[in-house]
Amino acid sequence: MVKISSLLILGAAIAQQALASVWPIPKVFTTGCTNIDLPSSCLKITVDGCSNDILDRAIDRYKELILNEHFKPPLDYNVAPLQASGSVQGVTITVATKNINLDLQTDESYTLTVSQNGTIAINAQSTFGAIRGLETLSQLFISNQGRKFIKNVPINIQDSPVFKYRGLMLDTSRNFYSIASIKRTIDAMSYSKMNVLHWHIVDSHSWPVEAKFDPRLSALGAYGPDMVYTHKDVTDIINYARDRGIRVIPEFDIPGHTYAVGLSDPNIMSCLDVQPNWNEYAAEPPSGQLNIIKPGARNFAKNLVAEYSSLFTDKIFHVGGDEVNLNCWEKDPDIKAHLAQNSTDTVESILSRFYANIYANLKVNNKTGMCWEESLLEGIANPPKDTIVQAWLDEASVVSIVKKGYRVVASPYKYMYLDCGRGPWLSNLYNGTSWCDPFKFWGHIYSYNPYVNITIPEEKALVLGGEVVLWSEQSDEVVVDQLLWPRAAAAAELYWKGPVDEKADMNKQIENVSPRINEFRFRLLGRGISAEPTQPLWCVRNPGRCNLPL
Amino acid sequence: MVKISSLLILGAAIAQQALASVWPIPKVFTTGCTNIDLPSSCLKITVDGCSNDILDRAIDRYKELILNEHFKPPLDYNVAPLQASGSVQGVTITVATKNINLDLQTDESYTLTVSQNGTIAINAQSTFGAIRGLETLSQLFISNQGRKFIKNVPINIQDSPVFKYRGLMLDTSRNFYSIASIKRTIDAMSYSKMNVLHWHIVDSHSWPVEAKFDPRLSALGAYGPDMVYTHKDVTDIINYARDRGIRVIPEFDIPGHTYAVGLSDPNIMSCLDVQPNWNEYAAEPPSGQLNIIKPGARNFAKNLVAEYSSLFTDKIFHVGGDEVNLNCWEKDPDIKAHLAQNSTDTVESILSRFYANIYANLKVNNKTGMCWEESLLEGIANPPKDTIVQAWLDEASVVSIVKKGYRVVASPYKYMYLDCGRGPWLSNLYNGTSWCDPFKFWGHIYSYNPYVNITIPEEKALVLGGEVVLWSEQSDEVVVDQLLWPRAAAAAELYWKGPVDEKADMNKQIENVSPRINEFRFRLLGRGISAEPTQPLWCVRNPGRCNLPL
Repeated sequence: MVKISSLLILGAAIAQQALASVWPIPKVFTTGCTNIDLPSSCLKITVDGCSNDILDRAIDRYKELILNEHFKPPLDYNVAPLQASGSVQGVTITVATKNINLDLQTDESYTLTVSQNGTIAINAQSTFGAIRGLETLSQLFISNQGRKFIKNVPINIQDSPVFKYRGLMLDTSRNFYSIASIKRTIDAMSYSKMNVLHWHIVDSHSWPVEAKFDPRLSALGAYGPDMVYTHKDVTDIINYARDRGIRVIPEFDIPGHTYAVGLSDPNIMSCLDVQPNWNEYAAEPPSGQLNIIKPGARNFAKNLVAEYSSLFTDKIFHVGGDEVNLNCWEKDPDIKAHLAQNSTDTVESILSRFYANIYANLKVNNKTGMCWEESLLEGIANPPKDTIVQAWLDEASVVSIVKKGYRVVASPYKYMYLDCGRGPWLSNLYNGTSWCDPFKFWGHIYSYNPYVNITIPEEKALVLGGEVVLWSEQSDEVVVDQLLWPRAAAAAELYWKGPVDEKADMNKQIENVSPRINEFRFRLLGRGISAEPTQPLWCVRNPGRCNLPL
Repeated sequence: MVKISSLLILGAAIAQQALASVWPIPKVFTTGCTNIDLPSSCLKITVDGCSNDILDRAIDRYKELILNEHFKPPLDYNVAPLQASGSVQGVTITVATKNINLDLQTDESYTLTVSQNGTIAINAQSTFGAIRGLETLSQLFISNQGRKFIKNVPINIQDSPVFKYRGLMLDTSRNFYSIASIKRTIDAMSYSKMNVLHWHIVDSHSWPVEAKFDPRLSALGAYGPDMVYTHKDVTDIINYARDRGIRVIPEFDIPGHTYAVGLSDPNIMSCLDVQPNWNEYAAEPPSGQLNIIKPGARNFAKNLVAEYSSLFTDKIFHVGGDEVNLNCWEKDPDIKAHLAQNSTDTVESILSRFYANIYANLKVNNKTGMCWEESLLEGIANPPKDTIVQAWLDEASVVSIVKKGYRVVASPYKYMYLDCGRGPWLSNLYNGTSWCDPFKFWGHIYSYNPYVNITIPEEKALVLGGEVVLWSEQSDEVVVDQLLWPRAAAAAELYWKGPVDEKADMNKQIENVSPRINEFRFRLLGRGISAEPTQPLWCVRNPGRCNLPL
């Protein structure tokens, strides 16, 4: 007997049934009703045709993961011993193309079949599709009485993501993150089939990356010599991520958020660490923006883009552009002097030229720009039409961006900012909340629809996907697992399978997902990711019994 | 030169100066301006007069801690190499009494002197005072260029707590906590000089403790055989805590919050797991209260109090009594039948007799009762006058309780509930916040004054202290460190040194404490407690530069 399932009939039924374990849920699948086991400590995975280093390493990794993992679903706490009608014979992977580029054209689709006789096949257009299939395969295995099983065989899965861009932003400037914690985050992203690490690598608070064009930047701007990512470290992280089908998009936020630059070259800065009234000059202390009138600042931007365009191999280069403070420049003596002598200029026009220069640098270095929404919507930066714009201030910004014909990545803070809701972090407050209260819990994240108020297909096509964002005022590697997981996984599924149905009962949809995200949380725990609990274990084990009557 | 400091001149000056590291800050101290070092890998600590096992173990523990700890204060990130004018010669401990009781009479005062010639003396009335002194001593050591120093010698400290009860509540029912995580929590409490672990050991969700009077309770009510605290485990934890001057007060919450009891004996229960409208019967699912008309329920309470009065050695026994739901009993068939035949009875009068029976059991077992505020303030339970009442619903409850002549432990949720602010946890919500939003950040906790609106000395004397509370709907041992620390430490200092000055600028007072709690957070990290960051490291290193201009 074979049951046909698809997203169209997502419901409570799925939660406790076939493929409940797989996160994000595959697009289309059919399942049967027998079980096969994995009889030995050996799993044979072979490639039919040509392989490559990335796929070979992925195979080794997933072999080890599947053989070492002993995942018991939380709903199986008192389950009877399973019987197997067959055993896994081996896995054959077929990849149609040799393309190993990671970009917006990467085809992550795959099919996965588990037959009753124990043969398993993964077919994909690309290496990265095959890696997604291996991840799904790993999540099919569950432990029962010390043995490993795949349940509900035969299984046929056809899977592919709805959105091409499924990202997570990590801010390594406000607090430092060890390479180990970044790699652990990349691991968890790969378990969730996310594909972009947006690395907000520098900001005002510290400059934790080696800069060959000015070694003072990290020597003076990093929190310490042990808190610097060398070029070698960056390349190591990029390769580690690429092995898992994850792009690393760097963000070098200019011209605002650059206090740390001033530690090595105060001459190219405006409003450097104004105190105590920093709030007139910046969104956060310490204040400081590149002095946009100074040739040195333009030169800094040029060198920066050149060096890091080479170091970061991704086609996309994020140049920030959020929260620039015009007052900072209006009060700057050099800019005031310039304006006094150039009556047709304004701070805005100077800034506009500065931005044009940044984008020209990107073009020279063959990069596609990415920027925060202000650069487009405030009308100063005029980013080139191929720039990807990241919405954060409002859900409505997503609409505004596509209406202007730009591609958009959605990370509206009301849904996607994982740092929110943990109180103020300034030193002298005994009362108050974080600016973006409340805490974004997984169900709220999951309920976000990046297509809201966008109906025209051409405009929908401009919505590349979205990101969860973790700013690090109140986080660092000590708490990163708990703050990201499983909440980031809610976004991962949203962007893989597509948003919830806005017309259907949203609470009901969340209820149906709840047992699955709980199960995924326990899988993450088993894989060494300290994901936070969402409920009492009693509720995890009793789906439907911890509902608010609505 | 000797500087005189005391709480009266607390200010920014202290933050970067002498004894900034010690948390909670000692009551009175003087410091000098020379440094001594710890020259070898050996530290001699001797007891002048009689010792005892508890003190001997504490000495071994602190020797090891001091020798193995390499704590570099975050403000010392670029400090010059220190010079020592002498070396630690050894520590002499003198304890005046042999009393090793841990109760409200325990004298935790101590003096600690570090002389310029390197001799160190701790004098205390009790073993536990000496242990507090050892903790302070351990926090005097800082690392510099690979060497250990005590700065600002000579040091004279006279220290004692303002409040006798400085507690932390852990809920091990909604989610389970391993013994290791409980011990780690006890460690961190001892570093903060807290002295009560309020162990909310059972609740509706699970019954994780061995019950010899009815082994079914844990066999059926625990989350699993690996999630049960045996009698031996409990004794181990009590002894571990006692070694650190921490009492373990158990809470067996009756008659509400008892669904898990119904798994073994549904006959003594009312409104057991009513679905879906559990909210008419309980504050949380699953519903279930002891059936207060049933002799079996009275017998259950009697057996419970008897067994756990013996197991838990503390004089105080918390019997819960929060959030009882009268509707649960009004709808109960047995109670309805009883009321139909006993026209002078009411649910309230039956409940009142049930409570009287509980308190009679406590008396038989020579225990002092403790209860949540509803038991007193709702006028049904009539707890004996020596009962300690725990306020949680409102700060004003503290006043109401002392006005009635009862001793109070303050844990108003608006300040002390560390689980708040992380979104709803029920399964079917895509929107909303936790009922007790927002998140309680450390500065807000620190600003609480349990004496508010209490002016009469006799009433003030009834305020024993307070507790931070971690309910476990959304926490377990994976996240416990981050949720407790350093926020619980804010409460620890509040109850050790006394509350902030309500008439002085509250924000300024918080600002002065900020560098110190940050420093303590880093000390906790070094000791293996995964405390969360409160700020960007830049702010930690630059006190006064991350203030909101007010």
